[in-house]
Amino acid sequence: MKSTFKIIGCGMYLPPQVETSKTLAIKLNKPESWIIKRTGVLERRISTIDVDKMGAIAAKEAIGNNAIPDLIINASGVPKQVIPDTSTFIQRELSYSGIPSFSIHATCLSFIVALNVAGSLIETENYKRILIVSSDRGTRGRNFDEPESAALLGDAAAAIYIEKSSDNRGILKYSMETYPEGAEFTEVRGGGTSLHPQDKETKLEDNLFSMDGPKIYKMAFQKVYKKIKYDLKETKLSQDDINLLIPHQASIKAIKAYSRFGGFKENVVMNILPETGNCVSASLPLAFVMAYKNQKIDKGDLIYFIGTGAGLSIASALVRI
Amino acid sequence: MKSTFKIIGCGMYLPPQVETSKTLAIKLNKPESWIIKRTGVLERRISTIDVDKMGAIAAKEAIGNNAIPDLIINASGVPKQVIPDTSTFIQRELSYSGIPSFSIHATCLSFIVALNVAGSLIETENYKRILIVSSDRGTRGRNFDEPESAALLGDAAAAIYIEKSSDNRGILKYSMETYPEGAEFTEVRGGGTSLHPQDKETKLEDNLFSMDGPKIYKMAFQKVYKKIKYDLKETKLSQDDINLLIPHQASIKAIKAYSRFGGFKENVVMNILPETGNCVSASLPLAFVMAYKNQKIDKGDLIYFIGTGAGLSIASALVRI
Repeated sequence: MKSTFKIIGCGMYLPPQVETSKTLAIKLNKPESWIIKRTGVLERRISTIDVDKMGAIAAKEAIGNNAIPDLIINASGVPKQVIPDTSTFIQRELSYSGIPSFSIHATCLSFIVALNVAGSLIETENYKRILIVSSDRGTRGRNFDEPESAALLGDAAAAIYIEKSSDNRGILKYSMETYPEGAEFTEVRGGGTSLHPQDKETKLEDNLFSMDGPKIYKMAFQKVYKKIKYDLKETKLSQDDINLLIPHQASIKAIKAYSRFGGFKENVVMNILPETGNCVSASLPLAFVMAYKNQKIDKGDLIYFIGTGAGLSIASALVRI
Repeated sequence: MKSTFKIIGCGMYLPPQVETSKTLAIKLNKPESWIIKRTGVLERRISTIDVDKMGAIAAKEAIGNNAIPDLIINASGVPKQVIPDTSTFIQRELSYSGIPSFSIHATCLSFIVALNVAGSLIETENYKRILIVSSDRGTRGRNFDEPESAALLGDAAAAIYIEKSSDNRGILKYSMETYPEGAEFTEVRGGGTSLHPQDKETKLEDNLFSMDGPKIYKMAFQKVYKKIKYDLKETKLSQDDINLLIPHQASIKAIKAYSRFGGFKENVVMNILPETGNCVSASLPLAFVMAYKNQKIDKGDLIYFIGTGAGLSIASALVRI
């Protein structure tokens, strides 16, 4: 075991406002059928509240009647604002004061990275109970001139609450790789020191989401395939030992590749993309929470989180529940 | 020991362009004497290269002839851009591919938080060698209508390279606290989902640094004082056991409080503020690297990192070198 912990609670926030691909088709000037065929997304949620409030709703559900956390990690893609980091605002919404909080940023993979960091901090007895919150409002940064990525994005938040465990539960295997040669495949180029909002040369589209789906898929395909083989070999497991594969909901093509080429049965690969779209960092924990609520997860199950994110990065975590 | 590691390299980048308080006085429409009296900053550096390139220069010096890292953590305040996170771009500048990298964001305290996370990841054998890079270009976000914070900020990068150690070196004690009631004391309100650059209501100053120095000092003073007492009591140490106190270079008043009220001799409190200003996340590791280069640090020394950051957060780490 890399780190021993158990999940004591989980929660989610799916904004009530639904935008169907039929409605979006008009904004994108594309047929509904094009959107559905190209992205697989039938509908997505649009949040009217900001990421801190979204995250706090999911967090409250995850905490439930448990003791309060002694660390809050915000593991999201896009922040509420540049400074302070979003964890502060999530904590404010939870009405806590004095609990340490910080953010981990690895775009769509923030949750997997944060889960491994949290597991490690629990293993080394830095903390007993850690709350991880992923909250993203990707629809705020949609570029309607880039219909594929604009149709993919949706808003959501999810939270996972973990605690030290005395039995054999937690992370069995974790790894991440970053390939900066793919840095420009997924970008929001503005908002920082490079193309500062006050700079005259910063264009509107620099502050919007930009994605080259085919290039990402081409670069990621072999690397993800190798990672699956490596993870299974190292843990002496086969695809059939995995109770549930939770992939980042990057695109319908990426999700389907796990069953088409990865050796997993289609019914063990979580696919929430048609109803939620790609919710950036929130997709991975959201898929977990939805599976849990649908009683697809039992104690002792082996869950395989895997995905690609801007960077281009790939990460995976094998977790015993 | 909380985690066992040794520092095998460190590096820094101080941009060559110096801006004296005499020059800045004209831009701020304030006398030079007002700037110096109010902030204690005589000069600061202005970078013409971006945070990724700055960080990579410091990183190369830190890595030196050592083996390459198996994890890169960007621990900075303000990113290069919203997506991907800055670690990707630092790795690209270092010409590595495949090394995992992500960002930890706790504004001015990012380095202390990252050091503890890195220590924990080494302790749990996730990684053998971790590179931590803090790089900030605060002068990009100066608001000249807010002369105190505008005079405080300076640009710099610093990197620390750590490796598993078999002897008793590493973090003895670490803790952090976040008080969201101080969230509005230090802000860059724009750049994220709250006041998005494309929103009509987003004003220029929303994308610039805003700080209420007196409110921060008032809120932080008692909390920092208590933390020092608590850290020393828990480790059964006295102020005289600390070889070097490295505070975040928040303001001259905050730095001087460690000797005036904290019980530390003035000559063990690192004060680089007059020559560098407040370099956001880079101040803490930069002060370490400058102390190391000036032969103020020996093997076996006990270093006390402490500071406050936007949030409002307070963090400290007692490190045996």
